[in-house]
Amino acid sequence: MKTYNVGILGATGAVGREMLKVLGERNFPVNELRLLASERSVGKKVEFQGKEIEIKLACHDAFKGLDIVLGAASNAVAKEFKDDIVAAGAVFIDNSSAFRQDADVPLVVPEINGDDVFKNKGVISNPNCSTIITLMAVKGINRLSKIVAMNACTYQATSGAGAAGPVELMEQMEELDKEYKETGIIPNKGNVEAKVFAHQIAGNVIPMIGSLKDNGYTTEEMKMQNEGRKIMHLPDLKVTCTCVRVPVVRSHSIAVTVYTEDVLNVEDVKAQIAKEQNVKLYDEPENQVYPMPIVTSDQDITYVGRIRKDLIHDNGITLFCCGDQVRKGAATNAVQIALKLVGLDF
Amino acid sequence: MKTYNVGILGATGAVGREMLKVLGERNFPVNELRLLASERSVGKKVEFQGKEIEIKLACHDAFKGLDIVLGAASNAVAKEFKDDIVAAGAVFIDNSSAFRQDADVPLVVPEINGDDVFKNKGVISNPNCSTIITLMAVKGINRLSKIVAMNACTYQATSGAGAAGPVELMEQMEELDKEYKETGIIPNKGNVEAKVFAHQIAGNVIPMIGSLKDNGYTTEEMKMQNEGRKIMHLPDLKVTCTCVRVPVVRSHSIAVTVYTEDVLNVEDVKAQIAKEQNVKLYDEPENQVYPMPIVTSDQDITYVGRIRKDLIHDNGITLFCCGDQVRKGAATNAVQIALKLVGLDF
Repeated sequence: MKTYNVGILGATGAVGREMLKVLGERNFPVNELRLLASERSVGKKVEFQGKEIEIKLACHDAFKGLDIVLGAASNAVAKEFKDDIVAAGAVFIDNSSAFRQDADVPLVVPEINGDDVFKNKGVISNPNCSTIITLMAVKGINRLSKIVAMNACTYQATSGAGAAGPVELMEQMEELDKEYKETGIIPNKGNVEAKVFAHQIAGNVIPMIGSLKDNGYTTEEMKMQNEGRKIMHLPDLKVTCTCVRVPVVRSHSIAVTVYTEDVLNVEDVKAQIAKEQNVKLYDEPENQVYPMPIVTSDQDITYVGRIRKDLIHDNGITLFCCGDQVRKGAATNAVQIALKLVGLDF
Repeated sequence: MKTYNVGILGATGAVGREMLKVLGERNFPVNELRLLASERSVGKKVEFQGKEIEIKLACHDAFKGLDIVLGAASNAVAKEFKDDIVAAGAVFIDNSSAFRQDADVPLVVPEINGDDVFKNKGVISNPNCSTIITLMAVKGINRLSKIVAMNACTYQATSGAGAAGPVELMEQMEELDKEYKETGIIPNKGNVEAKVFAHQIAGNVIPMIGSLKDNGYTTEEMKMQNEGRKIMHLPDLKVTCTCVRVPVVRSHSIAVTVYTEDVLNVEDVKAQIAKEQNVKLYDEPENQVYPMPIVTSDQDITYVGRIRKDLIHDNGITLFCCGDQVRKGAATNAVQIALKLVGLDF
């Protein structure tokens, strides 16, 4: 079997570490594995398939000889090294949002537009996490009738902000519990420090993720529409989105109403979703079975439930979906892109 | 000043205790205060305005001489005692959902349809908590142009399930923290017991509140439409709602898109919301100012922010609102109904 020299840029972050894990789980045909990170992590050792691999410095000449570079770094770092990666002859599968809207950069969810990977000119972008989970949930609906619009509200986990997110959540939970024990009163707002998030996240929800755009939406909210258009090949797709951070460790949830060209019935939608690759119909609310973060984390499947008719428009279907955004929403999707690129099953 | 004999049915629960507090805060002109509860609580003593009041048994002849009974009990208890209360000549302001859709029972948010209290035939219903908060947020929009539809997703606090809800949340948070300390791994699903909620609520979201109806919506979700119609005097209002429990102590949040007859602009909407009674425009996302449970709890004001144009329909406005559902969503609203009924400011 042909093997590949694979690099991970940003190998020590939450997504980079998960990429390493998924490469192993999926038996990606790795020849050399090169783990690149900033100065701070250089020299640390990480295990991969029984071998210890030393973290090397991400610098301009670090990419020579690589076939594929999985990017798990910031937009700035992705921009800094993109030309070096392409010049080295590698394909850069980048999880940052830096190039997602570039015309010559495919933006890919392999189960939806996998063949777009072959249009790459050296860079393939990995989409936004909530967008991936939502599109995985609704791709079956789009097969039944073209999606024209979506209204989505997210319930996004703290790990979407990196490995420090859940640590901050746990620290704040501990502080709230301590105050409760000392006073006998359950605190709403605790005496906590917010570093990763703009406000206390334990016992709270924060209805703003990303930075604000002129239209009053955040960058995170606009991704659902703009990335959705590109991935689904639906240039006229309209999406209203509200992104909310919730005190969850892992897995993003999304409540979404999908509007299609034709009127669909719920049973047909359920039957189609049940057939979709890497999607699980999980819809027995009468038995308290519906997608939830505690059910969907640490796996690659997007769960879909609470499927019902919209009550405003006949052509609407409302549902609730949930998936692990560090895995399918980031690391797994990137590795799947690499698998698709080299002609292997994903 | 005229004074009234006031009873609280279910005086020891989360809402009943808050009703007592709000009666005091608002200086409701109380002559006799009669606190009624089940056998279990009889004989306990509660303080009200410096006096100790003993809890009495809620039984069929417990209501004689009362002018107003605030109901903070279950549907079953409300149904059991309704005729006794009315026969005693009192007005029953009931927080249960038992009579909300009865034709001869006004369903009232005083700031919206306060005059409906005078149509009562002995019973006035207090609306559902999420419905009250949402309608408070959008009532200004309805003044600018008639609301025809809403798409709402809720982020509902654990105290919506009664006083035991936040206790279960805190216990589970403690267990998750313990597991984290023992293993060094942040758990998604902990070794926790779920009694109040169908599943673990700490570190999770549960996309089902209430019981399931034939159309796939829950009783809780249908309240937003059916109670909304009655309160707003909008018999054709259509509402698609997804109700989700989140690990928050207090205050429900709702992301809602409101569709109106006319096309509105965001500045007019903000200006109107800023003028609304008991509503606070809290909308400076550029400064990280938006409604959140840690901001809105333990008060009676509904906060509204993230106001922007819907991206699907020109006649849509999208916003995020938050309010204390034990207070404005239940106890305060009931006391305000009583104030309105006796001709006092609320």
